[in-house]
Amino acid sequence: MPPYALDDLELSAGKRARLYRMLHAHGPGNGTGMFLPVDQGLEHGPRDFWDNPDSEDPEFELRLAEEGNFSAVVFQIGLAEKYYPRYAGRVPLVLKLNGKTEIPPDDEALSPVNASVEDAVRLGADAVGYTLYVGSPAQDRDFNQLAQVRQEANRFGMPLIVWSYPRGKAVNAKGGQLTSWAIEYAARVAQELGADVVKVNLPENDPENVRLTPKPYNTADFSEDEAVRRVVRAAGRTPLLVSGGSRIDEEDVLSKARLGIRAGATGIIFGRNVWQRPHEEALALTRKIQAVIREEAFAPLAARV
Amino acid sequence: MPPYALDDLELSAGKRARLYRMLHAHGPGNGTGMFLPVDQGLEHGPRDFWDNPDSEDPEFELRLAEEGNFSAVVFQIGLAEKYYPRYAGRVPLVLKLNGKTEIPPDDEALSPVNASVEDAVRLGADAVGYTLYVGSPAQDRDFNQLAQVRQEANRFGMPLIVWSYPRGKAVNAKGGQLTSWAIEYAARVAQELGADVVKVNLPENDPENVRLTPKPYNTADFSEDEAVRRVVRAAGRTPLLVSGGSRIDEEDVLSKARLGIRAGATGIIFGRNVWQRPHEEALALTRKIQAVIREEAFAPLAARV
Amino acid sequence: MPPYALDDLELSAGKRARLYRMLHAHGPGNGTGMFLPVDQGLEHGPRDFWDNPDSEDPEFELRLAEEGNFSAVVFQIGLAEKYYPRYAGRVPLVLKLNGKTEIPPDDEALSPVNASVEDAVRLGADAVGYTLYVGSPAQDRDFNQLAQVRQEANRFGMPLIVWSYPRGKAVNAKGGQLTSWAIEYAARVAQELGADVVKVNLPENDPENVRLTPKPYNTADFSEDEAVRRVVRAAGRTPLLVSGGSRIDEEDVLSKARLGIRAGATGIIFGRNVWQRPHEEALALTRKIQAVIREEAFAPLAARV
Amino acid sequence: MPPYALDDLELSAGKRARLYRMLHAHGPGNGTGMFLPVDQGLEHGPRDFWDNPDSEDPEFELRLAEEGNFSAVVFQIGLAEKYYPRYAGRVPLVLKLNGKTEIPPDDEALSPVNASVEDAVRLGADAVGYTLYVGSPAQDRDFNQLAQVRQEANRFGMPLIVWSYPRGKAVNAKGGQLTSWAIEYAARVAQELGADVVKVNLPENDPENVRLTPKPYNTADFSEDEAVRRVVRAAGRTPLLVSGGSRIDEEDVLSKARLGIRAGATGIIFGRNVWQRPHEEALALTRKIQAVIREEAFAPLAARV
Amino acid sequence: MPPYALDDLELSAGKRARLYRMLHAHGPGNGTGMFLPVDQGLEHGPRDFWDNPDSEDPEFELRLAEEGNFSAVVFQIGLAEKYYPRYAGRVPLVLKLNGKTEIPPDDEALSPVNASVEDAVRLGADAVGYTLYVGSPAQDRDFNQLAQVRQEANRFGMPLIVWSYPRGKAVNAKGGQLTSWAIEYAARVAQELGADVVKVNLPENDPENVRLTPKPYNTADFSEDEAVRRVVRAAGRTPLLVSGGSRIDEEDVLSKARLGIRAGATGIIFGRNVWQRPHEEALALTRKIQAVIREEAFAPLAARV
Repeated sequence: MPPYALDDLELSAGKRARLYRMLHAHGPGNGTGMFLPVDQGLEHGPRDFWDNPDSEDPEFELRLAEEGNFSAVVFQIGLAEKYYPRYAGRVPLVLKLNGKTEIPPDDEALSPVNASVEDAVRLGADAVGYTLYVGSPAQDRDFNQLAQVRQEANRFGMPLIVWSYPRGKAVNAKGGQLTSWAIEYAARVAQELGADVVKVNLPENDPENVRLTPKPYNTADFSEDEAVRRVVRAAGRTPLLVSGGSRIDEEDVLSKARLGIRAGATGIIFGRNVWQRPHEEALALTRKIQAVIREEAFAPLAARV
Repeated sequence: MPPYALDDLELSAGKRARLYRMLHAHGPGNGTGMFLPVDQGLEHGPRDFWDNPDSEDPEFELRLAEEGNFSAVVFQIGLAEKYYPRYAGRVPLVLKLNGKTEIPPDDEALSPVNASVEDAVRLGADAVGYTLYVGSPAQDRDFNQLAQVRQEANRFGMPLIVWSYPRGKAVNAKGGQLTSWAIEYAARVAQELGADVVKVNLPENDPENVRLTPKPYNTADFSEDEAVRRVVRAAGRTPLLVSGGSRIDEEDVLSKARLGIRAGATGIIFGRNVWQRPHEEALALTRKIQAVIREEAFAPLAARV
Repeated sequence: MPPYALDDLELSAGKRARLYRMLHAHGPGNGTGMFLPVDQGLEHGPRDFWDNPDSEDPEFELRLAEEGNFSAVVFQIGLAEKYYPRYAGRVPLVLKLNGKTEIPPDDEALSPVNASVEDAVRLGADAVGYTLYVGSPAQDRDFNQLAQVRQEANRFGMPLIVWSYPRGKAVNAKGGQLTSWAIEYAARVAQELGADVVKVNLPENDPENVRLTPKPYNTADFSEDEAVRRVVRAAGRTPLLVSGGSRIDEEDVLSKARLGIRAGATGIIFGRNVWQRPHEEALALTRKIQAVIREEAFAPLAARV
Repeated sequence: MPPYALDDLELSAGKRARLYRMLHAHGPGNGTGMFLPVDQGLEHGPRDFWDNPDSEDPEFELRLAEEGNFSAVVFQIGLAEKYYPRYAGRVPLVLKLNGKTEIPPDDEALSPVNASVEDAVRLGADAVGYTLYVGSPAQDRDFNQLAQVRQEANRFGMPLIVWSYPRGKAVNAKGGQLTSWAIEYAARVAQELGADVVKVNLPENDPENVRLTPKPYNTADFSEDEAVRRVVRAAGRTPLLVSGGSRIDEEDVLSKARLGIRAGATGIIFGRNVWQRPHEEALALTRKIQAVIREEAFAPLAARV
Repeated sequence: MPPYALDDLELSAGKRARLYRMLHAHGPGNGTGMFLPVDQGLEHGPRDFWDNPDSEDPEFELRLAEEGNFSAVVFQIGLAEKYYPRYAGRVPLVLKLNGKTEIPPDDEALSPVNASVEDAVRLGADAVGYTLYVGSPAQDRDFNQLAQVRQEANRFGMPLIVWSYPRGKAVNAKGGQLTSWAIEYAARVAQELGADVVKVNLPENDPENVRLTPKPYNTADFSEDEAVRRVVRAAGRTPLLVSGGSRIDEEDVLSKARLGIRAGATGIIFGRNVWQRPHEEALALTRKIQAVIREEAFAPLAARV
């Protein structure tokens, strides 16, 4: 169950109105969220559409988002301009403001801004998304860039969702991007720099990697649940979304959602795991995920015992 | 039945998203609207709250708007800043950008701008409102002022609702503000100057006034229905809202709504007729108005015969 | 007792911090205020200093404000630049942003802006003040001007105190600036246009003037207490300060403060009544006013019976 | 003797440096000033040059200013551009930023800005001058205009000298521009609005005019000395310069200077009285004025008895 | 005892007002300061919260700052936005404008800006903080960045506190960041570039490192007291705060405070040494530090002998 309700947070009227639409009026409701990200065409290229060729046409994801009652669909500016108008108001939109290709190596990762908060306002979006590469040698430019976006988002009352990802050669040397150390740090950095919502990967407890992390993380051994609760706590008053990553089995998808929400995440943001499946299968999975979220987030404690 | 659906209109994604929320996700639905204006405290002063002292506290209107599922509540900037945050997202907001007191005479009426479209964006509003005094000797400044608002609204994808009112000494000399001539002209002017939605009073067929209007209106004699259909036609692709004016009997309120919607209005915008009644009575009336709108707007033609 | 605590109001962090300093850390405390306005040198000229020639030197008022622990002193920009630096931080400052001389007649009163919110930030002020002439034929320019100030104040988290005064020939024709009708209307207009705090005169129940006011005010007969409570209610969530006006007897000063605070005013703003007295006398009166405010605002209900 | 030294005033480094050059390094010295205004060609037209045709060529005044060691010469932008370069640094420059012709009547006097503080910086000026018409019906635009100049002067550390003149039909109706009431008010307004230095006329005690002034001025009867001391006091921490007006006898010029400095003025600003005389005569008078200023401002008290 | 009182410094009214609030109205008082920095979540990540898990929630530090009457709490923008509003005005805020993670190596250290002075104004902060890495190969970008911040701080009257830290591979080659050479240089650089207050580490007299410093430092041998007095002198008219660094014994904390204040520091800024202890222990230590500051800063000289 999310540790904070929208009313507990210090949000301006505009941010509150827009988050309310995604976390109450759409999606699983009652302050939880289920987002459909469709930025992989930029991040990974069309190779991600091979498993389900229909998914290359963003209409596929929009129909799914509307029928599956997602909290929002996430697009880069081009897809938003070309495909969103016919769904405007029917499905909330998160406009992703930066992105990059996977072609150059990630040693000095930086995700350049390609759209503005004003673009998001103009399109009727309910949030903007920004990818921050925590620990990258390019973090100086990243922090500057994020500050611009944050100030513009603040001025327009637009919620800012930060994809907070440990990345770069210094991270790799310290156990990589999936250790508790790296992910907790990333969650904290998003909160420190002013994210309204933070999106993270769940940590993996790989002993070889853990050993490379800074003290005292290098000798810690967290259970799966504990590890996720720690990330939620590191994010503080920043509602947290759990990333999906590449496609896994349906049962694993549901477990991941359950694990996250149970530990206090506000929602999930699963892309490939949803739209790399054919329409009917994707829709069925969507409904199961929603059921899990509702169950974990709202069930009376008694019912869980 | 409104002559145009949202999809028939040339609207940007942002305007479409925002209008959809008011005309589909809230209110009577299916492209119709029922708005609750609360700008009379500025326009007329606290005298309007005497009949129902509870109404002086904008919380009264907000609760009513939420429970009655209005399409939106209409506030000036001060009420929006102070009272809207706790209802943000739960009730759509129309931010009224101009307004005046009734203290100086109306001969050269002009409603000065006191807030910006950016304020509306920041507060999470779904439209802005602007009062245009058609025919006032001050119309030059009015047109300039409206142009600024329209351009800013366009830039941000914010729907612009124009309160289009014939007003001023030249209008008075030609039969006053309630003739078909004056109201049709006002509806057309709103469309000509770029309103996304127009709010008008319904015309009154007072022979003495009609005689003073310009040719050929001065000899015309329209039935009530015809008069309203003419106004809807004058507004063209600008969806039209029917104003309520000062408080009248419940039956008359319902007739007015029926008359407007049957003639093609997209919705009604009744303030004093709603909130000058105690909560329960106001809520009951709200539901009856919604029923009338749904009946007139969506009923199969057969059912009307 | 003020109907709203700071925490009840929708205030940004900056506005909250600054109001807290004036209403809690300085002045009578606990959310109440006692302000010392010194803008009469501009509004009335040096004739106001005749009764107490020492008062012509703003050091007199600053020493009084510091020793008497006022919530703030109110200066125009020139006095603030020249006299405030040596008291910076020791006495909070309200920078009055507009003002005029009394030399031209008041028929079309407008108080032009002579400083900016940025000036106030630069000087370390804790609020800005703006005089609004409600009902003046120049209200169109007044509203535009106030909107600029409000937006700048919002951007910088600077509280906006509006001197809301009915004024102009149309007001005079309707009973003048001291009727309940005029003052309630002025309080409401300040709230509608976005004041954070409003300063008003207390209404006078002069039957001849009341008869000239619009319906239904023209037949109303309010007790003194009721009249003030109505003004507080008209201001809604806008904390209200009671103006002092020209010098009156000490007993009348204390009665006025008591009347206002008992009816729900947040504080008083008495200038000439304080600084037209010699230092020791002014300081003694200041302490008596503070005692009255504390007594009326914080005394348990029981104690009042 | 001026009541405040530069070091007593709250001046930024830039204003202090520039005022020091005029009040210490040039002119009679030791914190006093003697300015040569040459803006009458704009204000009155060439008729002012008839008495001494040489004076039409600004070289005449510049030579005089240099040889007579004036604190500064005062020019409008055109003269400054065309004549100042050859004297740059040798004579300080005050750039007058506004001015008007005397052709339209003065009922609604306003002196429009024709140059900027940035022009003054660019030209190496040590101050800017601004004429404020206190009490004019156009005071709203005047105050706005002065605020712009003051903010720009503040930004650049440029001293702002305000020509503060009661003017307009409302002033005329209250005894005209030379009563103590009007001039004290004007001095105070300059201080309230942020002048660094103020230039005023000396009051005249004409019983007929005094009777028309507001209470309590209408029954006051000040000696010449007292009247000037009151104006100095009204200006507070704003050093005061005494205007010269139209040409008078040499003895009267010297008396006026003596009267002003003795009462606490910081300096004099005499134009026509100087340059309407031939070079040698003007230079001789200049030296006598300087002697008077030094005598009155610095003489040990003993010497005055 | 600090060598300069606020009144001795050339501060604008705004900077004076804000510094007064931190150094007089809050904290140990009388011109001294005790600051609570909470930027380690960004600088070091959540590992700093392991010793006292409660400290991960910024509410912990805010409660401590309020109960312990700190001069101010120091936050990055995200914590300020999310946690400060409920404490606004009760605890002064220093908004840290730049920061970085410790993940990439420090060879070319640069702390990128992530917020603006305008953010600080908007939040009601009383100062901004900036980390300057003196001697880093990236110092060109650092100086440019600091210049922007300084100019904006000057424009808004906002005090600028510079964390002045020797850093980078060139510093390491010359004895590292804790030699007298490096720290005196850093203090002087802060003063040269316009800091209003400077925060430094105390120097350590490690002979091996001293030998690597430039002449004549490489042969100097300063006593502990002398070393600190030299740093205070290097900062000139820039009041100096002593950093705490990582957690040490209570006695060492108190000695460090005593050493600094006795040598002329204006205050201390201890974070981990305070909030890595449980609430009651932290509060008790806070009070002991305040006692030391008061004793060293205000005790009559006689009392120290």
